[in-house]
Amino acid sequence: MANLTIDLNADLGESYGNYKIGNDQEIIPLISSANVACGFHAGDPSVMIETVKRIKESGTTGLGAHPGYLDLMGFGRRYMKLSDDEVHAIILYQLSALDGIAKTYGLSLNHVKPHGALYNATFSDKQLAKVIAEAVKDYNPNLKLMGLANNNLVKAGESIGLQVVHEVFADRAYEDDGTLVSRSKEGAMITDSHIAAERVLRMINEGKVESINGQDVDIQADSICVHGDGAKALEFVKEIKKQLEEKGVSIKTM
Amino acid sequence: MANLTIDLNADLGESYGNYKIGNDQEIIPLISSANVACGFHAGDPSVMIETVKRIKESGTTGLGAHPGYLDLMGFGRRYMKLSDDEVHAIILYQLSALDGIAKTYGLSLNHVKPHGALYNATFSDKQLAKVIAEAVKDYNPNLKLMGLANNNLVKAGESIGLQVVHEVFADRAYEDDGTLVSRSKEGAMITDSHIAAERVLRMINEGKVESINGQDVDIQADSICVHGDGAKALEFVKEIKKQLEEKGVSIKTM
Amino acid sequence: MANLTIDLNADLGESYGNYKIGNDQEIIPLISSANVACGFHAGDPSVMIETVKRIKESGTTGLGAHPGYLDLMGFGRRYMKLSDDEVHAIILYQLSALDGIAKTYGLSLNHVKPHGALYNATFSDKQLAKVIAEAVKDYNPNLKLMGLANNNLVKAGESIGLQVVHEVFADRAYEDDGTLVSRSKEGAMITDSHIAAERVLRMINEGKVESINGQDVDIQADSICVHGDGAKALEFVKEIKKQLEEKGVSIKTM
Amino acid sequence: MANLTIDLNADLGESYGNYKIGNDQEIIPLISSANVACGFHAGDPSVMIETVKRIKESGTTGLGAHPGYLDLMGFGRRYMKLSDDEVHAIILYQLSALDGIAKTYGLSLNHVKPHGALYNATFSDKQLAKVIAEAVKDYNPNLKLMGLANNNLVKAGESIGLQVVHEVFADRAYEDDGTLVSRSKEGAMITDSHIAAERVLRMINEGKVESINGQDVDIQADSICVHGDGAKALEFVKEIKKQLEEKGVSIKTM
Repeated sequence: MANLTIDLNADLGESYGNYKIGNDQEIIPLISSANVACGFHAGDPSVMIETVKRIKESGTTGLGAHPGYLDLMGFGRRYMKLSDDEVHAIILYQLSALDGIAKTYGLSLNHVKPHGALYNATFSDKQLAKVIAEAVKDYNPNLKLMGLANNNLVKAGESIGLQVVHEVFADRAYEDDGTLVSRSKEGAMITDSHIAAERVLRMINEGKVESINGQDVDIQADSICVHGDGAKALEFVKEIKKQLEEKGVSIKTM
Repeated sequence: MANLTIDLNADLGESYGNYKIGNDQEIIPLISSANVACGFHAGDPSVMIETVKRIKESGTTGLGAHPGYLDLMGFGRRYMKLSDDEVHAIILYQLSALDGIAKTYGLSLNHVKPHGALYNATFSDKQLAKVIAEAVKDYNPNLKLMGLANNNLVKAGESIGLQVVHEVFADRAYEDDGTLVSRSKEGAMITDSHIAAERVLRMINEGKVESINGQDVDIQADSICVHGDGAKALEFVKEIKKQLEEKGVSIKTM
Repeated sequence: MANLTIDLNADLGESYGNYKIGNDQEIIPLISSANVACGFHAGDPSVMIETVKRIKESGTTGLGAHPGYLDLMGFGRRYMKLSDDEVHAIILYQLSALDGIAKTYGLSLNHVKPHGALYNATFSDKQLAKVIAEAVKDYNPNLKLMGLANNNLVKAGESIGLQVVHEVFADRAYEDDGTLVSRSKEGAMITDSHIAAERVLRMINEGKVESINGQDVDIQADSICVHGDGAKALEFVKEIKKQLEEKGVSIKTM
Repeated sequence: MANLTIDLNADLGESYGNYKIGNDQEIIPLISSANVACGFHAGDPSVMIETVKRIKESGTTGLGAHPGYLDLMGFGRRYMKLSDDEVHAIILYQLSALDGIAKTYGLSLNHVKPHGALYNATFSDKQLAKVIAEAVKDYNPNLKLMGLANNNLVKAGESIGLQVVHEVFADRAYEDDGTLVSRSKEGAMITDSHIAAERVLRMINEGKVESINGQDVDIQADSICVHGDGAKALEFVKEIKKQLEEKGVSIKTM
């Protein structure tokens, strides 16, 4: 169990103009990877610059692009049926925008994690997963692609030679097939940080998680998704982090 | 008069989704620099990719970014009072987006020319000119900054060490101070391509243009702005180009 | 066969700022109902005012709202998964915006026809059809709801007491179930205006259309959808109209 | 001093999708007029419906439209140079959208107050004030137009026969010419609610306010602008309201 490491990732830079969301300053010191919105579902050029600067100053948090659908009103959480070429184009545009800003401030992209409905839609749409992976590779084959553990996005990335990051959720229950239990179902959310930490530790050590139906499911845990919106969420992250570190797991960018 | 060269530039990639503007395919072979919209006042990710590919295929046309205000409804032609930081941020975002796409397709940016109201506002706002020039330099100090000949934008660029491109207009009359006669005034447009070519030749050879009031005005002509919208505009470009070449001026990217 | 009437409808007011689409001036005298874009997938406030004025001047064309998804980049043709409340809200907003403008210029709404993906999605989504119909009724129970003949939208409208308009397509082939043959299939488009007119006449007289598989399908023809983009499309409309009138069918707003 | 009344107005419905701003539920019971964003600088169709319902339920707060520039990123606070026709069109569109929604829920518009830069720009631009007033009148001549007390907007409204509402600011210092002291100047904000209430009382009783330079300035106080963002702002409103009522001034929609 020595030398175990895991990544903690969170979505950042989701404010827009006069609208503020999240506690970026508080969450950055707790995580090792930041998924930064690129101006389509959230974020604007000024927010992106501010966020990149903060990540740079942190010195330890990896920078990732968090591209989404062009749907500010729906915060990128509403599925949109785009053609393959359109998906390719909006990924390329958003990676470019954030990466160029990052380079201007002495950083560059380490990973890509699609946002919201663009992420979720890959659970059932292998072609979409493939198009996203290819767009990332076209832009820069050295970028890591983050997606739901053992699911289509990481598989699509692997199959074209990208490094991938299997993402797990500390605060969510799993179905038998390794997908997330819908938030609308009872038992979908895990609110006890001790239970959450225990589950994550088992994912890291054994590569298994117990599903909502009591079955053991194979799961590869490279990065844990956490949230920074609200005092309670921040407390949850601190608690998870503390318990992981006590068990000898160190938090590190993939 | 031997070995004289001049650049011909035009705005491209201004379509948006289902909306088509311009004759990019027809104008590309005629020009040596393309100012490509970056998704704010015009252009979308798919249009940008298509435009970059066409320019790449042409083999001879230089790629430039054409950043504008975030105002699709006004096509970037309506002045917006942004803070210095906001201007800096929207320039950085747009250069990054286009440059990243360009690099993905084997090209990279050669120059930057602000669009519409963002360009025109620099005629009377030196601070805006400075902020634009600094944003370009922050992104990439090797980029050339194109602006109205002998005016604030090129001066701001020069003063911080950027290479600049003095832009002149073949189809527009000039005021005594070297600014353009407003389109709403009589005599503002020069429609005879022979007269236009004669005027441009004099700008190149003598560094002078006759103003609408009959005065000789100093003007440095590095690049001529032309338009590709409509058969008549294309004819005008061909005519100008032919006459310049007959007089020993070759068309070349700066 | 005496006293037969049918409505001809077309989409109008789809320009946006500097972007022009369609031949509104040419198509208005040919049709009896105009579906006017409301600023979400196309159209802007100035275009809407101009379009309303033109329809008012025509004296004979009925005004309809043509609400769509908030997706200018996709021209409202890309499916978006909205909640019922969101669909209700965007319909209400768009009807209100156009109706208020119309009333300011002495007109008011006669009908509503959803646009693009919002229209097409109702073919397989009865709940969406219901939500759209209810939003129309909530706004004004006297509005007529136009939808694909014999399909979910008109059925949803009828079931809550709205007057409905069964829409047929002169230039499209039909499947056995009365839905349109996808444009990607061979034989989907009917380009011969004589055949198109014959088919429409049979729909009016017999309530039947022959499907792409040669089967007779029941169809109620209240309004024919026509297009005004391009000289060829206008010619097609004129031809259809001429042949209908020669056969004693008069063109009239429902 | 008996039977004095004044209106208290606040901006509402400024949330957008996932982005929340303001404390609409808390501020509604304290005010008598709500200026509701119409989807251009803030607000979306769902937020507008929710806001209209809340105002309807309050039973005592008048509904106003709060139209702004189409600039969500700048929250309508950045000046945009629009043509007269464009201003007219965006006002008409926004009034229509909100009024139609309001009528659907049993309310209708009582007043109009332009937002942010569209409001402020009228201080120095009489033509803009005229265009706004005319747009309001074109839409509905019974609407009241709210603008800075004794300034161009109310004057423009009066000159074409609109009822106008002179707006004063309890928390802002005044220049000698009756305009607001810029927030960037020292002394611009009045933070002591007792002083604020005293100043407002004098405006109501004497029609005068002391400028930042110690001069008495004529001012007509029909409505006081208050803010609902944050606990401190709400406390300020409660305090002002309490003191006004103690002095016999009742709060009532104009």
